Amino acid sequence: MKKVLVTGCSGFIGNYVVRQLLKNNCQVIATSVDEGKARHHDWFPLVTWVPFNLQKDTDVGVFGQPDAVIHLAWEGLPNYKSLFHFEENLPAHYHFLKSLIANGVTDITVTGTCFEYGMQEGMLREDMPALPANPYALAKDTLRKFLSELQKLYPFDFKWVRLFYLYGEGQNPNSILSQLQKAIINKEPAFKMSGGEQVRDYLPVEKVAENIVKVALQNTITGIINCSSGTPVTVKQLVQNYLQENNVSIPLQLGFYPYPDYEPMAFWGDNTKLKEIR
Amino acid sequence: MKKVLVTGCSGFIGNYVVRQLLKNNCQVIATSVDEGKARHHDWFPLVTWVPFNLQKDTDVGVFGQPDAVIHLAWEGLPNYKSLFHFEENLPAHYHFLKSLIANGVTDITVTGTCFEYGMQEGMLREDMPALPANPYALAKDTLRKFLSELQKLYPFDFKWVRLFYLYGEGQNPNSILSQLQKAIINKEPAFKMSGGEQVRDYLPVEKVAENIVKVALQNTITGIINCSSGTPVTVKQLVQNYLQENNVSIPLQLGFYPYPDYEPMAFWGDNTKLKEIR
Repeated sequence: MKKVLVTGCSGFIGNYVVRQLLKNNCQVIATSVDEGKARHHDWFPLVTWVPFNLQKDTDVGVFGQPDAVIHLAWEGLPNYKSLFHFEENLPAHYHFLKSLIANGVTDITVTGTCFEYGMQEGMLREDMPALPANPYALAKDTLRKFLSELQKLYPFDFKWVRLFYLYGEGQNPNSILSQLQKAIINKEPAFKMSGGEQVRDYLPVEKVAENIVKVALQNTITGIINCSSGTPVTVKQLVQNYLQENNVSIPLQLGFYPYPDYEPMAFWGDNTKLKEIR
Repeated sequence: MKKVLVTGCSGFIGNYVVRQLLKNNCQVIATSVDEGKARHHDWFPLVTWVPFNLQKDTDVGVFGQPDAVIHLAWEGLPNYKSLFHFEENLPAHYHFLKSLIANGVTDITVTGTCFEYGMQEGMLREDMPALPANPYALAKDTLRKFLSELQKLYPFDFKWVRLFYLYGEGQNPNSILSQLQKAIINKEPAFKMSGGEQVRDYLPVEKVAENIVKVALQNTITGIINCSSGTPVTVKQLVQNYLQENNVSIPLQLGFYPYPDYEPMAFWGDNTKLKEIR
């Protein structure tokens, strides 16, 4: 039975990753800054809970000797433009993971972001250069590079899962499908959105968690791995699909919000590498 | 009269940059961790000396209000592979420069390195992606990216001078022309070197200092600027040129040392941007 440490387990993705690990008969060591939120989940009695604040605590011995780590924790989202990401998070997370490695961990899976590709358009492949264009993406990309240098000195299996877009129960209330649900519930006359022509890559959070766990529990495919559907979809189409699947309707007020300036108009992830994992 | 703060002024390049600034009638505020070494230079009485250790000291108010900063300081060279570069130097240098900016500095010139291009071969241009392949290059490249993000919040003129190879009086005794001089003085039977077929880009240190000062004292051309000759030369040719210019001879024992693993075989810098500066 594999012992897996999951950080950020009370976050949107963390909740699903813990579930997926339990489904895979793993022993889960779970941590997060928000113990109260973690306690609300039905899986809480099934995991070994270890309170830990990686911005302050330094003794990673409290986690025992996990066989693998899935590092999901990341503070300060979704404020992508704050310098906090590289000024505070980057050193804290780097030293946390380095301490785990120094403590004997040999298998690390960390979630990155499609924003590491920056303003590059089209189908994004893992071997393209990272060109992060905001402090959040820069901090993540730099963390990956620091760990890659560390790996040359202290060998460990290193898997970096670049997340694209995801949706599902528990997501950020500012995300588009949450806003859409709210508009429907509030019987608003129309759903205010951007032009909707931007092309993205979406996966349901359950599928994302399944992918992360699949990546974490093997050691054949390592390095950067896109966690994406591989199927581009416009945001307008995403919204229309949701309305159709849930058998609801609301007029779309397209063009109400401007397109965000920190993302290219059209990008999606090549998921060939992900699909190679058995 | 422009007031310019120079860090690392007792280093190989610093010495020449201070001279060049004085020649340009600038008022020089000079600092370095090595006051003893700085005191040995004939320019010492001509500058405002401010003792400062940027790994420890934080009050940049001691420098007064310089009109511009030329930041040359960097510890731990030439040990390119030490994690120290990004674990210690990167945060220390970032916070030092951020403090200067917070204190009112609006014009910053920092020296980067051709190693930021990583293992890319051929003529290197500023608009190529940075692909640093060792901790030193990674730390420098990351410092540049952090400062670029900072610049979006606190506007300042930012010039990043990528140095290629240089030579001259006072250089590291392990550099190839120092070793060559030593072999000649010691009347060694042959000069032990690598195959010498690697293609590089060399400038005399006086010319490098002239370029750095030229870049620092203007604000039209900013961003990344290669400081290079633009003329590729093999290391063997460099050595032969030196022998010829100094009218000395010694047999070359080619292939004695392996080629370094952290550099590509052939690269040189496009200096079009540098030459655009009046």
